[in-house]
Amino acid sequence: MNWTGYLDANQARFTKELLDFLRIPSVSAKPENAGDVMRAARWVRDRLETAGVTGAEILPTAGHPVVLAEWMGAGPEKPTILIYGHFDVQPAEPFDLWQSPPFEPEVRDNRVWARGASDDKGGMLIPILAVEAMLKTDGRLPVNVKFFFEGQEEIGSPDLPPFVAEHADRLKADMIFSADGSQWAPGQPQIVEALKGLVSLEVHVQGAAADLHSGQHGGGVANPGMALAQILASMKSPEGQITVEGFYDDVLPLDAETRAAIARVPYDEADYLAETGAPAVLPEPGYTVRESLWARPTLEVNGMTCGWQGAGTKTVLPAQASAKITCRLVAGQSPEAVFETIRAHVAAHCPPGVTAEVTRNPGRAEPFQVPVGHNATAIAAQVLEEVYGRAPYRTRVGGSIPVMTTLLGELGVHAVMFGFGHGDENIHAPNEFFRLDAFRTGQLAYGQLMEALARG
Amino acid sequence: MNWTGYLDANQARFTKELLDFLRIPSVSAKPENAGDVMRAARWVRDRLETAGVTGAEILPTAGHPVVLAEWMGAGPEKPTILIYGHFDVQPAEPFDLWQSPPFEPEVRDNRVWARGASDDKGGMLIPILAVEAMLKTDGRLPVNVKFFFEGQEEIGSPDLPPFVAEHADRLKADMIFSADGSQWAPGQPQIVEALKGLVSLEVHVQGAAADLHSGQHGGGVANPGMALAQILASMKSPEGQITVEGFYDDVLPLDAETRAAIARVPYDEADYLAETGAPAVLPEPGYTVRESLWARPTLEVNGMTCGWQGAGTKTVLPAQASAKITCRLVAGQSPEAVFETIRAHVAAHCPPGVTAEVTRNPGRAEPFQVPVGHNATAIAAQVLEEVYGRAPYRTRVGGSIPVMTTLLGELGVHAVMFGFGHGDENIHAPNEFFRLDAFRTGQLAYGQLMEALARG
Repeated sequence: MNWTGYLDANQARFTKELLDFLRIPSVSAKPENAGDVMRAARWVRDRLETAGVTGAEILPTAGHPVVLAEWMGAGPEKPTILIYGHFDVQPAEPFDLWQSPPFEPEVRDNRVWARGASDDKGGMLIPILAVEAMLKTDGRLPVNVKFFFEGQEEIGSPDLPPFVAEHADRLKADMIFSADGSQWAPGQPQIVEALKGLVSLEVHVQGAAADLHSGQHGGGVANPGMALAQILASMKSPEGQITVEGFYDDVLPLDAETRAAIARVPYDEADYLAETGAPAVLPEPGYTVRESLWARPTLEVNGMTCGWQGAGTKTVLPAQASAKITCRLVAGQSPEAVFETIRAHVAAHCPPGVTAEVTRNPGRAEPFQVPVGHNATAIAAQVLEEVYGRAPYRTRVGGSIPVMTTLLGELGVHAVMFGFGHGDENIHAPNEFFRLDAFRTGQLAYGQLMEALARG
Repeated sequence: MNWTGYLDANQARFTKELLDFLRIPSVSAKPENAGDVMRAARWVRDRLETAGVTGAEILPTAGHPVVLAEWMGAGPEKPTILIYGHFDVQPAEPFDLWQSPPFEPEVRDNRVWARGASDDKGGMLIPILAVEAMLKTDGRLPVNVKFFFEGQEEIGSPDLPPFVAEHADRLKADMIFSADGSQWAPGQPQIVEALKGLVSLEVHVQGAAADLHSGQHGGGVANPGMALAQILASMKSPEGQITVEGFYDDVLPLDAETRAAIARVPYDEADYLAETGAPAVLPEPGYTVRESLWARPTLEVNGMTCGWQGAGTKTVLPAQASAKITCRLVAGQSPEAVFETIRAHVAAHCPPGVTAEVTRNPGRAEPFQVPVGHNATAIAAQVLEEVYGRAPYRTRVGGSIPVMTTLLGELGVHAVMFGFGHGDENIHAPNEFFRLDAFRTGQLAYGQLMEALARG
């Protein structure tokens, strides 16, 4: 029997095993589930052993543990790949919105319904099963494979940067594939070429020493709420252009080929407006909505605080006002440099009568963009085209995935997202599910990927 | 004995009576003190009778009562004046900040220390005592006098407009004097020529139907926090000019004589900055700080609400943002017309991608300005100059006093503030006090006022 035949013959068992895995409520955010996260780590370690990957280990961090394993039998002339995934899950509350209980998985409509089915237990089990199929039939893998599974992705992987730094030698690989990700749609694969970086900050405006009576002092001293509004308005045109001096300076321009690739991905404005409920789109002038969402930096007000916010009227002239802002960054930009442009802009545009200060808030990510011609990406795209019978869309993500930049920073390797979830699978929400078709397709794709990587 | 001799002879008793009056905790804001407010009304009625004003009456309203009385013995050829004051007081909390208990009045340093001593029990007792002195010595008053004392000023006189409308005939007078007010400083009288009006509103901006992920949708749809900032910034220049189209259209210009009168009132910028703690002043361009505070309309942000206001970072693209605004209005402007200019301005300046709505909040006052050459004001000024030996400053107030506009609206008469408190007497705060010198000066001034009015 070849490895694809093994996959066919064992799907029923694999599905049953996925359900077992999903029964463990490995919610990393809840201290009371810490033991369950550890149980999930042991399940993963044992499952790797079952697959034929001997010597899998649970390693501690300051928080939830990591599982590492490797099969290096392909020899030094073959590439070594690192496969990433996570066995922790989001909280499942509110439970009463679930059609079946989140930790009592059910199969309905050829889908598995449970918390973590799509994000990421189904996803991270896929490469283990592909490896098992090859080891149980051929007795070997076409390439050297390392597994790196963590238990704290859903809380932002706080202990991962020091762990990866400390274990950089052991994690060293020629290519990295993340099994935490999704395809564009059933039947339509994608390659994610870039993620945005992040810098988070706060603008704080101070006027008088304390709140004043707006009748007694209005017209005498400046109003920090108005001053904050003027500062914010100086940062962005009504048409959506960021007007912070120097903000776009380091941005790598979008070349015609990339713009064409983005334009090939279907976009329906009516659908987008229906999805967001916004009265109109507002892309950066000169760019399409998709280009603006995927490939241009943003500056967004996340919150504003000033004065009286209760019911009715309070005739107060507030002493302070502040706004929280996050910027999403693209290739070429750095969080520190962008923070500095904003700090300088606010200093230059602070209106008379108040003082303004800009401070950083927690949250930082470097932008992530796969270099043009990146070998692992090219091979992944080719495999997806073979498996799906369609060329993958070249897409980008407006959000940030810190682990991608951690791996790049510590190991110097751009990870390729090679996952088989879909955007509609209710991750982080009630009634999460995973498509069994995609579960099977993913196993085939990981097998073919290893074969393609061996050919080089 | 003439009436001034009577005043001299009875000051000790008057002070003792003021202390009795102050022992009644007539806090209109607290339902548990409603009986005390009524007790104060009875004290006032009885005190009027003692003064020789017979037939004083307590009249009900939907809330706290009113005391009305009149002495009409001067005959129809003499003018009739209405004297206003209030016998309710502010809450006294926090009690532990008082040097002596708020409702156990003490005399220290020739001052009476108690809640309500300055605002307004000391003030409203003054004209009663002047009337008593004249009635007990001359047996008559030089003019006809009506008294109108209320018990709900400190809660905004909610039941006063219908009461005044209903009793307009009974309250009808040629001139109105408010015994609720203050002089500029010990030894320096003032005539308050204008109060500002008020309109209160809220600007509400709506973007997407619900809060969105700032990474997934930033750059695709508009940010309501930024849109609100842009709308607010379009309303006022950084230099302090209101840029709402038409906002200043109805404002009566300040003539040179009024500007000169304002300039004669001492102003020390260092003192003003020390008082407010603001880093700089910000008057309307083209006007002094005093002119801006006293005689120019204002537009102040009282509060702003948008998105995440907790600690740290939340990468949310908020669905909504709103700002509370109050405008102080000057003669010529109306709350309704100013609201309409702002509504139209916001509609014209709403940036793309959001919708904006402007609604009114509770709180409304017409601007109040004594007409040039107003007879009662001229006579009051002359009396103050005689009593103090110094011409009164011509001042204005940036705040609004609804009862002044209610009396003007219902009775068609501009009231003159003729009160003897001072700005430093801790009204609405712990350790309120009233100067016994001013208590005595006020009695003399009210007597001389009645004599001067009789001369015409």
